[in-house]
Amino acid sequence: MRASELAKRLDGTLEGDDVELVACGGLEEARPGDLSFCKDPKHVKLVETTKASAVLLPPDWDRGAPCAIIRVTDPNHACMAAAKLFAPPEPVRAPGVHPTAIVDPSVRLGAGVHIGPLTVIEKGAEIGEGAVIEAQVFIGEGCRVGEATHIYPQVTLREGTVVGKDCILHCGVRLGGDGYGFNNGRRPDGSVFIEKIPQLGIVEIGDGVEIGSNTTIDRARIGRTYIGPMTKIDNLVQIGHNVKVKGYSGLIAQSGVAGSTEIGYGCLIWAQAGISGHIRIADGVQVGPQAGVPQTLDGSVKYVIGAPAESMRDFGARLLLPKQVAKLKAELKDMKSHLPPH
Amino acid sequence: MRASELAKRLDGTLEGDDVELVACGGLEEARPGDLSFCKDPKHVKLVETTKASAVLLPPDWDRGAPCAIIRVTDPNHACMAAAKLFAPPEPVRAPGVHPTAIVDPSVRLGAGVHIGPLTVIEKGAEIGEGAVIEAQVFIGEGCRVGEATHIYPQVTLREGTVVGKDCILHCGVRLGGDGYGFNNGRRPDGSVFIEKIPQLGIVEIGDGVEIGSNTTIDRARIGRTYIGPMTKIDNLVQIGHNVKVKGYSGLIAQSGVAGSTEIGYGCLIWAQAGISGHIRIADGVQVGPQAGVPQTLDGSVKYVIGAPAESMRDFGARLLLPKQVAKLKAELKDMKSHLPPH
Amino acid sequence: MRASELAKRLDGTLEGDDVELVACGGLEEARPGDLSFCKDPKHVKLVETTKASAVLLPPDWDRGAPCAIIRVTDPNHACMAAAKLFAPPEPVRAPGVHPTAIVDPSVRLGAGVHIGPLTVIEKGAEIGEGAVIEAQVFIGEGCRVGEATHIYPQVTLREGTVVGKDCILHCGVRLGGDGYGFNNGRRPDGSVFIEKIPQLGIVEIGDGVEIGSNTTIDRARIGRTYIGPMTKIDNLVQIGHNVKVKGYSGLIAQSGVAGSTEIGYGCLIWAQAGISGHIRIADGVQVGPQAGVPQTLDGSVKYVIGAPAESMRDFGARLLLPKQVAKLKAELKDMKSHLPPH
Repeated sequence: MRASELAKRLDGTLEGDDVELVACGGLEEARPGDLSFCKDPKHVKLVETTKASAVLLPPDWDRGAPCAIIRVTDPNHACMAAAKLFAPPEPVRAPGVHPTAIVDPSVRLGAGVHIGPLTVIEKGAEIGEGAVIEAQVFIGEGCRVGEATHIYPQVTLREGTVVGKDCILHCGVRLGGDGYGFNNGRRPDGSVFIEKIPQLGIVEIGDGVEIGSNTTIDRARIGRTYIGPMTKIDNLVQIGHNVKVKGYSGLIAQSGVAGSTEIGYGCLIWAQAGISGHIRIADGVQVGPQAGVPQTLDGSVKYVIGAPAESMRDFGARLLLPKQVAKLKAELKDMKSHLPPH
Repeated sequence: MRASELAKRLDGTLEGDDVELVACGGLEEARPGDLSFCKDPKHVKLVETTKASAVLLPPDWDRGAPCAIIRVTDPNHACMAAAKLFAPPEPVRAPGVHPTAIVDPSVRLGAGVHIGPLTVIEKGAEIGEGAVIEAQVFIGEGCRVGEATHIYPQVTLREGTVVGKDCILHCGVRLGGDGYGFNNGRRPDGSVFIEKIPQLGIVEIGDGVEIGSNTTIDRARIGRTYIGPMTKIDNLVQIGHNVKVKGYSGLIAQSGVAGSTEIGYGCLIWAQAGISGHIRIADGVQVGPQAGVPQTLDGSVKYVIGAPAESMRDFGARLLLPKQVAKLKAELKDMKSHLPPH
Repeated sequence: MRASELAKRLDGTLEGDDVELVACGGLEEARPGDLSFCKDPKHVKLVETTKASAVLLPPDWDRGAPCAIIRVTDPNHACMAAAKLFAPPEPVRAPGVHPTAIVDPSVRLGAGVHIGPLTVIEKGAEIGEGAVIEAQVFIGEGCRVGEATHIYPQVTLREGTVVGKDCILHCGVRLGGDGYGFNNGRRPDGSVFIEKIPQLGIVEIGDGVEIGSNTTIDRARIGRTYIGPMTKIDNLVQIGHNVKVKGYSGLIAQSGVAGSTEIGYGCLIWAQAGISGHIRIADGVQVGPQAGVPQTLDGSVKYVIGAPAESMRDFGARLLLPKQVAKLKAELKDMKSHLPPH
């Protein structure tokens, strides 16, 4: 888009060359063809060195720029508006079933549903009104997908999985795989056996849940693995069988929750944290990045960190140990030097 | 299913309303429509507050319940039986090749094999008797899949991969990707080069192995990456090139094993643990959750934890350091106060 | 292949039985049917106990072997040559579009492109000359894939993703998923809201980048998530939105980089390490396995380890604390015993 056209759409004024612009970017990352923005005179150095082809600046900016300037009342806000203009257009997923989709005749499809190419939906499944199921998805027998839920390509839902309304499942999400459960032991003759414990339950996802790419959630051994409403799960997260996430919680990338654990309302589990099985995280508790939680957190501490997880205060004290020990050592030496010889 | 019908099937007696039941669940998680169970009078409080519509109780239970009661000899056992009745019926994967599967004419299919829709099997592959290959799977050239092995949707086996008998591969498993191997350096002119090292080997999976959703196992640089019999691997696990897992071991979710390492028989690698490359874990050793193992474990310590991994005793001592240091500090201060001034 | 045939191809001499050989393997891992190798007399014990059917040995080896011997000038080099002979033949991906691929008429395909079965390419996408897109891939609207890039089965590129020349994307790679971004808060009435922040940018991958199985890279909130040239990413890695990896860096398995962080040139992020958002890792810095980096690394320390990450020196000192504290305790006790009673 031409800078002049963009200036018009953003209610701004172009100063300088009418360059072609293709994307937005921060002042430091921007390249030729990019539009950047600055509202704070403090960042004048970044403006001076930016490689952007145009920059959004406020009316009172008097330091110039090494590229075209588009003056706007609120550069932040104008940049968001411009980002929408530059964004790849959202693909239209019109109602209808692609002729290459394989949908069992018993499947009930709500009004306005989109089923993409090469998607498989097995018998007895139900897809709610206005849901979008993109290409190459697998939806097993008896699954239920709620209204207006969006499933991106190459997601798999094993049989019996239930997904609520207004959910978003990103590419490669795996719902309903067998939980990890085996009985081990030795037979009377001393030989080892490892027997699979049947995983007879399902996964149930509440309304408004978003699940990131390649995240895995296992079916319950008995009953349900449950992800409550409005929970937001990032990429590559692992949720074990019979976990219950009550709702309105966040689980950041590569975190994991072991079997039968309960996560309260409004919790935040940061990246790469691990939570043991058969414990409880109270409402509103945050588990820091890479923390390891071996036992129930009753909410008396609101943020834990470290492995095993502890309060920020205890964790901070632990970090200071080397200095403290060095100081003790010095004091002891000093004291020794003042003692009478023995 | 009606409570009365269920009572009949479980050899029990119904007391109370003949409610409709749809699932099993623990006393705390259960919702209306659920059947729960209790055998221990200690848990009477949980029974009193359960939201289940019916509860399995032993013959001598005299504390009542806020819902229907089904009296059975062994509530635990009856609950397992009920779970099977409530479980989503296992999909039937009848012998035959789905017309949309793309199977090279040279592929050898054993008797009774099921090949699901939109699955691709390339030339020279062999699928053993009774194997189930579900929808949208990719099996590369010359792969061999053993008898009665079950491959869930959207698994990929790169060329030459060998999978044993009675294995289970869950959705999104990736076998035979190139291992991470590059030669880096500088050319005489000072410029940097990064060259791919050809990954010429394969992945070989023994009999009775189960591999969880989205787990990745790389092909060997030379020879085989080997997962021995009866090994059970959870979700999102990473196994590097030329790793050898001797057999009868477990690798829990999000753990990782770097290249050329050997894991002995009967090991257990807990969630999110990481094991360095080119080392050896002796038979029967357990590596705790989030542990980091930088060097060979010869079996003299049976359980390690922490990063770098150490014995429980050493790890426990480390956890106590803040208290010990505080005590030393207090003692030192006390001692000082009793010294003559200098 | 017969040992005699192999000896001929490797310019070696066979001594012993003309056994059939099917693979290569180290002395310890080798099984009947394998060829192994040894050049160092120090490893004579391993040769004596190997289960290989033949072993490559240097001309001056005089300790014999329990199997056939192929004498060659350089056993290492000969083993690499043999590995190539035993490797599964690389599948031929001839130019052409498989009849079951679903390619929008508007897609521009370069000369010699291979499009595998059941692959979906949406409107406006461009595939460069000589690129190989294998089976069951999804390429969204307006994506651009560079010349000679190889995309393995079951990769997904969401709309607008740009991939450079000579890249390799392994099975299950997910590019362009929505970044994790939500606005949370409370409405005037006290109720909680969690709103999705539109993710309007793209993912752009430079030339010569390799990305491992099931790795996920999120699209930018605005602008680009950028992976610079020659970067090598392993399996199950997570890269957040708006991350910038300048180039020539390595990210090992299961590591993660949170949003808006910049990784310099020539960095190495080891397995399971985690890097916080909105920070900067200077050129050439290495982040050790399982390290957690909470703040910018300016390059004054070249290798960091631990969580929070510190220098090897500081990390080493921390590991020694238990010993130091025990020593202090003993000294204190000793000192006390020499003080006058009070």
